Amino acid sequence: MNEEKITLSYGSGGRLTHKLIKDIFIRHLDNSILSQMNDSATFELNGRIAFTTDSYVVNPIFFSGGDIGRLAVNGTVNDIAMMGAEPLYISLGVIIEEGLLLEELERVVISIKDAAEEAGVKVVTGDTKVVEKGKADKLFINTSGVGVIPEGIDIRGDNARPGDLIIVSGTIGDHGIAILSERGALGFSASLESDTSPLNRLVASMIDTVSDIHVLRDPTRGGLAETLNEIAQASNAGIEIYESEIPVKGAVKNACDLLGLDPLYIANEGKLIAIAPEERVSLLLDIMHSSQYGKDAKVIGKVTGSHPGIVALITKLGAKRILDMPSGELLPRIC
Amino acid sequence: MNEEKITLSYGSGGRLTHKLIKDIFIRHLDNSILSQMNDSATFELNGRIAFTTDSYVVNPIFFSGGDIGRLAVNGTVNDIAMMGAEPLYISLGVIIEEGLLLEELERVVISIKDAAEEAGVKVVTGDTKVVEKGKADKLFINTSGVGVIPEGIDIRGDNARPGDLIIVSGTIGDHGIAILSERGALGFSASLESDTSPLNRLVASMIDTVSDIHVLRDPTRGGLAETLNEIAQASNAGIEIYESEIPVKGAVKNACDLLGLDPLYIANEGKLIAIAPEERVSLLLDIMHSSQYGKDAKVIGKVTGSHPGIVALITKLGAKRILDMPSGELLPRIC
Repeated sequence: MNEEKITLSYGSGGRLTHKLIKDIFIRHLDNSILSQMNDSATFELNGRIAFTTDSYVVNPIFFSGGDIGRLAVNGTVNDIAMMGAEPLYISLGVIIEEGLLLEELERVVISIKDAAEEAGVKVVTGDTKVVEKGKADKLFINTSGVGVIPEGIDIRGDNARPGDLIIVSGTIGDHGIAILSERGALGFSASLESDTSPLNRLVASMIDTVSDIHVLRDPTRGGLAETLNEIAQASNAGIEIYESEIPVKGAVKNACDLLGLDPLYIANEGKLIAIAPEERVSLLLDIMHSSQYGKDAKVIGKVTGSHPGIVALITKLGAKRILDMPSGELLPRIC
Repeated sequence: MNEEKITLSYGSGGRLTHKLIKDIFIRHLDNSILSQMNDSATFELNGRIAFTTDSYVVNPIFFSGGDIGRLAVNGTVNDIAMMGAEPLYISLGVIIEEGLLLEELERVVISIKDAAEEAGVKVVTGDTKVVEKGKADKLFINTSGVGVIPEGIDIRGDNARPGDLIIVSGTIGDHGIAILSERGALGFSASLESDTSPLNRLVASMIDTVSDIHVLRDPTRGGLAETLNEIAQASNAGIEIYESEIPVKGAVKNACDLLGLDPLYIANEGKLIAIAPEERVSLLLDIMHSSQYGKDAKVIGKVTGSHPGIVALITKLGAKRILDMPSGELLPRIC
């Protein structure tokens, strides 16, 4: 293994910064836009654009099912896809703690390359900073991205309407519990993998057939509960979901029981919520089931005209309780 | 003063994250795109686009002449402007160290608001993460941005041509020395201010009159020496600059003498290099001199057909020496 470490000189501009960019970033991520190496990337773009940013501080940076690089690409790809847009170009800003092994950085960059290829996006511009040991934690990554929204598509968080059904694309809580397991929180090694995945091709096939989906959202930090609360509030509509219908893996359920956590509040990184008119839902499910990213998709609830802004959970025992927005100490650095 | 501090809960999604976003970010930066609060910002954009990203880890976060917020907006605005593009929309990703005073964060956000207004750009999307005390250093900021390149403009780092003259828009080294002074490196308090400024309006007026500027670059990390070397290599042209013509403030020169530094290698955050055909230069200087950001603009050298890829400095004594790309330990966390 290459034991060479990142020093402050790698981040100060000058020869070592150029070497790092050339030997690690350009080497693996090269494309005709990135290699221009101007102050900005340039490309042609026309129409309604989606633009987003996310920073990733996940701890640890390598985990079962992915790493911070794959997470950073998929997270931004998904935020663009949730507007119905086709993600095209992403940026990559890294903040490295002095002492990180070059080999670890390269592993992350290769993972970024693989994730970008899987999603069909290009990394076209980047930035590298290095801070002193103890002033960051190994590696933080920011990705921003742009995509184009197809004509006629109008998908927004404030567009849920009474009568709509609510679909989740698969099991929930996988990412958050995988990270906790990786940190040793379970006290044993569970066979849990992060679900980090690019959802843009799934979304493209969905809107290709059902162009009047009302809402798409990926339930990341704060989990399904957070995202449904945001949608209920933005749309000023009520939401009702059925505990018995929500797909949760056995291992995730067991880990949650052990740790006193509720899977509804645990982060996902490869799942989406789709809200659509009832009459479009069976077609939508057919399409989702034919994708590896949506094969476990299920209807979990509906939008109602009553209790606007409130999410209600119908428990397995048939009781109805308010599913609050998460509050207090959640899980830090889950993404 | 508000002594309330950022805790990990502010970064975990949920109520406190929403409160932070609403009370600090939306409150000061609000605009019709940002307030949609979807997974991505959306807007119309057509033509040739410039897209860039930069992370800011400057230490300290407040300094004479600016702070990390103003620096982050101007840096990305300038990287877009250096393609001749009009910067329009920027993203804001913050990584906060647990324990940062809310009041300090708010000061930075107000500074971001002011800088965005000065540059005429909108912050349209953002992200907030919080990491444990000792896992970051107060505040890191990433800004990415998009802008539109006017038709007919083709400004690139590889476009310097023999015979072109080289203009610098003002005094060099101000930002780097201001940061060093702020860190106490000088042993006394010098009256030095960072030059952090948005250069997009200056650039717009320049290309409005002289559409055939060949190269624009802002000499940030690594200073004038780094940027000129990059241009010489990308353009495969020689560059000759005259030490006696390079504007340096007395206080910067004195500080450099004291610290054994060369102002040619010190970062600038509000200066640009313009390379243009000789016959266009007097008109270009007239335009630059009428802007507060270019009033001290000067021709400092020329592009030559000899020694391609090499930057030569003609010293005040008339000697000619190679001005290398910076190497080794430079100044960490200057931006």
